[in-house]
Amino acid sequence: MTLCTCIKAESVKVAEDPTVTRPGSHELVPIDTRPLVAETPLSALRSWLTPTPLFYVRNHFDVPEIDADTWSLTIDGAVSNPVEISFSELVRLPKKTVPAMMECAGNNRSDLDPKVPGNPFRDGAVSNAVWAGAPLKPFLQQAGFSSGAVEVLFEGTDRGEPEPGRGEAPYQRSLPLQIALHPDTMLVYEMSGETLTPDHGFPVRLIVPRWYGMASVKWLKSIRVIERPFVGFFQTERYVMTDESGTEGQLSLMVVKSFVSWPEHGTSLPVGQPVAVSGMAWSGAGPIRRVDVSIDGGATWQDAHMDESAIGYSWQEWHIDWTPEEPGHCTIVARAADDTGNLQPLENYWNPLGYCINGVKPVCVTVV
Amino acid sequence: MTLCTCIKAESVKVAEDPTVTRPGSHELVPIDTRPLVAETPLSALRSWLTPTPLFYVRNHFDVPEIDADTWSLTIDGAVSNPVEISFSELVRLPKKTVPAMMECAGNNRSDLDPKVPGNPFRDGAVSNAVWAGAPLKPFLQQAGFSSGAVEVLFEGTDRGEPEPGRGEAPYQRSLPLQIALHPDTMLVYEMSGETLTPDHGFPVRLIVPRWYGMASVKWLKSIRVIERPFVGFFQTERYVMTDESGTEGQLSLMVVKSFVSWPEHGTSLPVGQPVAVSGMAWSGAGPIRRVDVSIDGGATWQDAHMDESAIGYSWQEWHIDWTPEEPGHCTIVARAADDTGNLQPLENYWNPLGYCINGVKPVCVTVV
Repeated sequence: MTLCTCIKAESVKVAEDPTVTRPGSHELVPIDTRPLVAETPLSALRSWLTPTPLFYVRNHFDVPEIDADTWSLTIDGAVSNPVEISFSELVRLPKKTVPAMMECAGNNRSDLDPKVPGNPFRDGAVSNAVWAGAPLKPFLQQAGFSSGAVEVLFEGTDRGEPEPGRGEAPYQRSLPLQIALHPDTMLVYEMSGETLTPDHGFPVRLIVPRWYGMASVKWLKSIRVIERPFVGFFQTERYVMTDESGTEGQLSLMVVKSFVSWPEHGTSLPVGQPVAVSGMAWSGAGPIRRVDVSIDGGATWQDAHMDESAIGYSWQEWHIDWTPEEPGHCTIVARAADDTGNLQPLENYWNPLGYCINGVKPVCVTVV
Repeated sequence: MTLCTCIKAESVKVAEDPTVTRPGSHELVPIDTRPLVAETPLSALRSWLTPTPLFYVRNHFDVPEIDADTWSLTIDGAVSNPVEISFSELVRLPKKTVPAMMECAGNNRSDLDPKVPGNPFRDGAVSNAVWAGAPLKPFLQQAGFSSGAVEVLFEGTDRGEPEPGRGEAPYQRSLPLQIALHPDTMLVYEMSGETLTPDHGFPVRLIVPRWYGMASVKWLKSIRVIERPFVGFFQTERYVMTDESGTEGQLSLMVVKSFVSWPEHGTSLPVGQPVAVSGMAWSGAGPIRRVDVSIDGGATWQDAHMDESAIGYSWQEWHIDWTPEEPGHCTIVARAADDTGNLQPLENYWNPLGYCINGVKPVCVTVV
């Protein structure tokens, strides 16, 4: 196995300080503007908390303008007592705080070869925040869902043509009933201590911890309990993939993944100077059990130190201490394993829509 | 015992939504400008994370302008190998993330009667953030402190006259050696995912979790290991108090405390509409064991629900569900107890400099 990605001589640069903000290095990296799609910059991927202005954005349609005073959320469908919730009612409930990271299902899509269509995300369609709001479960219980209920359908206020010629429709996503009833599936109105911003779903969005971001519907408008699995563009045409066994399925939990956030790819490091090789790891299936790190392209591996930051559903910071001993080319790779036995693969699994890209990603440095 | 604080008829207002930002309600509340002293607004005291622009500020002198590229921190005194740390070296070490709340020792000073001198803080000289940096301990070990070392003295770059006529001096504070060596006593350069701001100690400050804020020296310039307890204005003339047994001592750990953040004092609440009576609790001595809440001024009490937010050294969110049953005047009080047996007192302990004010604070509401 070789995990080396050659560094072209002209791209070698001296590693700068990890936290010094350089012009352009600490702003969202735009991918598209209508609708807004933008990545978190690498500099912010080194911090446990992603500041809200740097939290990645993957909108599907233009941001709707909503007045919280007139906003309300209906829960209907296969229920005995339809419920309508005003913003005022929601924020007067006990506020629950849940740290949770979120990854776009298309993160690292641009690493695929051959290339695939879709937003060409590099490494930054992943972020971590502290959300606050109220669990959804009591509302579903209050509505009294039928014994035949199988899914809960969430509709955002955002709407548009998912593809040219398809006609205008709202953003809609369903969750299996038992996921909608999870105590940490939340109606959220606050992000990292501030009112939710328009880009992130003001006034109220869903947060589904451990799932890819497409499940956390923004600008929530209505919730419908349904007795047949939902079929819709963003449910059964997008955010689906065929796994290696040939079975096609909807995306759900984030697959196990890690990345190296420091040092940066393409930098040079002086012999004898210690480096904290650092990064993040996560898995929707359960806590991270270990991260193995190699500085020789996968020939030998060592256990990374797990930092104490795996709080709630946030990501796990890890690091190893490394002192480069001789000049040359080094390929750093990290590989995470979760508590349920899932191991990050060495290679990306190519799929035509470019989802769930979690192969180990080499970071090449030159020791000088 | 009566804990009732009468509401003057003209001040009764209808309770608004807890999270709706009203003009002026979501900005720092200024106390002084030279140096900057400002409180966190009540609206932000309802969130686990205090956004950095709303984190309380208690500076002692003007904010120094520091260039991170030329900044360095020296460790000398009773050591065998003096150490000099550049910003670049510090940020290349493994980054450690520590959630920690901080309270100014003078918080709630304005509640004392008779009045005392000093910044007239109300309830907002307390905040919570996620700090990141490197532990101090390895640097002290590297310096090789002497067997006679008893304290570590921290000096900030900020300086001025602590009192008119006293002459100019830097801000200096010492810590007992064993506190300086605690693994979570940190040299911090990042606050809630962003580079530390000038008001909060850029480029590097100390964070001493569990201690009142005066220990977390900003704009760190030098660290000196000393063999005799330090004597200085901010160590032995301020931030000292005589306890109820008559013993005078320096302030250190935050005393056990809680407050009611919702509903607000002086509001009216409709009969029959449920209210999440909510607040925060903390203690420097250990985790919060329980918070007792009374809505009848202390006649009867109930156990509050402890939310899952007591992460690291952050504060503990709590709430009780309450549905006002009949019109009238209600006095809400909360009382915290920590794991080491400390119980928040019913009354404030008056002391001439106004420190460690932790008596239960009634919140009066009118049910209509």
